[in-house]
Amino acid sequence: MLRGIIRGNIVSTRKQEALIGSKFMEVELMKNGELTGDYLIAVDSVGAGIGETVLITTGSSARLALYNANAPCDAVIVGIVD
Amino acid sequence: MLRGIIRGNIVSTRKQEALIGSKFMEVELMKNGELTGDYLIAVDSVGAGIGETVLITTGSSARLALYNANAPCDAVIVGIVD
Amino acid sequence: MLRGIIRGNIVSTRKQEALIGSKFMEVELMKNGELTGDYLIAVDSVGAGIGETVLITTGSSARLALYNANAPCDAVIVGIVD
Amino acid sequence: MLRGIIRGNIVSTRKQEALIGSKFMEVELMKNGELTGDYLIAVDSVGAGIGETVLITTGSSARLALYNANAPCDAVIVGIVD
Amino acid sequence: MLRGIIRGNIVSTRKQEALIGSKFMEVELMKNGELTGDYLIAVDSVGAGIGETVLITTGSSARLALYNANAPCDAVIVGIVD
Repeated sequence: MLRGIIRGNIVSTRKQEALIGSKFMEVELMKNGELTGDYLIAVDSVGAGIGETVLITTGSSARLALYNANAPCDAVIVGIVD
Repeated sequence: MLRGIIRGNIVSTRKQEALIGSKFMEVELMKNGELTGDYLIAVDSVGAGIGETVLITTGSSARLALYNANAPCDAVIVGIVD
Repeated sequence: MLRGIIRGNIVSTRKQEALIGSKFMEVELMKNGELTGDYLIAVDSVGAGIGETVLITTGSSARLALYNANAPCDAVIVGIVD
Repeated sequence: MLRGIIRGNIVSTRKQEALIGSKFMEVELMKNGELTGDYLIAVDSVGAGIGETVLITTGSSARLALYNANAPCDAVIVGIVD
Repeated sequence: MLRGIIRGNIVSTRKQEALIGSKFMEVELMKNGELTGDYLIAVDSVGAGIGETVLITTGSSARLALYNANAPCDAVIVGIVD
């Protein structure tokens, strides 16, 4: 998994039907607790907000965290770091 | 997911049968809203055009966005950013 | 697989239900026996501790090492290097 | 997907049974139409030859392009760019 | 797939049960026939030894090369280059 801080959200009105209702967050990745300047976009599954440090699962495993496991999604926020 | 701007399309007459009808777009990737100079090729699933900012899903999850979920495709445009 | 040294653990109280009980370890990756300064977060499946050198499996294969193969997890510690 | 130019072929007599008959091509990757100096090895599925510009699908989706969908292969040439 | 030269083997006594009997090899990757200084660890499936040039399949496709397709493994040596 990856760790990062949520920096913003992305709005997409015209999208795949299976993604309707998904909250897209842009996350700045960290390594060893320091920011890297790299970013990815993940769907939130735990009610995380901007500024929170989160855990992200990528790849096909990510879909297992979603209500709709057939959504075409490759990165999901699966936890908020204490 | 990744975000980027569609820069062009790629034409391939001789291709896998399951990809016939697919629209291949070359997308310049962004991070935190800035262009990176990195590119990938994704199949469009939402009617996106050159110059539009889009969301891309990669890996096996990408296929879930296609009409033919058995197409040998690893990147799909799943949304247009507002 | 990747090799690395466990540097710390990550605590996440609010997380996906399928990840409850998972021990998240931050691992510094190695190549050819030397540290790289790159990090990832993996769930432990073999009782490894901080300072130990471990093998990590990533992607969908990682889940096969977990008790709950449907956990949204993309990296698991699968062995401790002698 | 990725785009690249086929630079050569790789011969492997001793290999996994499910890969017998596969044509392994070494491909130099491009981005935005320019060569990158990065390479990967892909199995051909469309009759492509050295010097041709091709589209490559990677990951588990790649196998869907092969006659034997259980072949342990992670990159397949799925189209020839016009 | 990737090409590389086997540089050594990794011994792990305490590991996932499904990996018992697996031979873990550390492989230095090549591109276009030249060494890169990058490494990964792959399970051997073709009887390859140190110093041999090999083909490696990664991701979920890798498991298809193993006797136990449920082993939590993400990289397998699938051929020896002539």
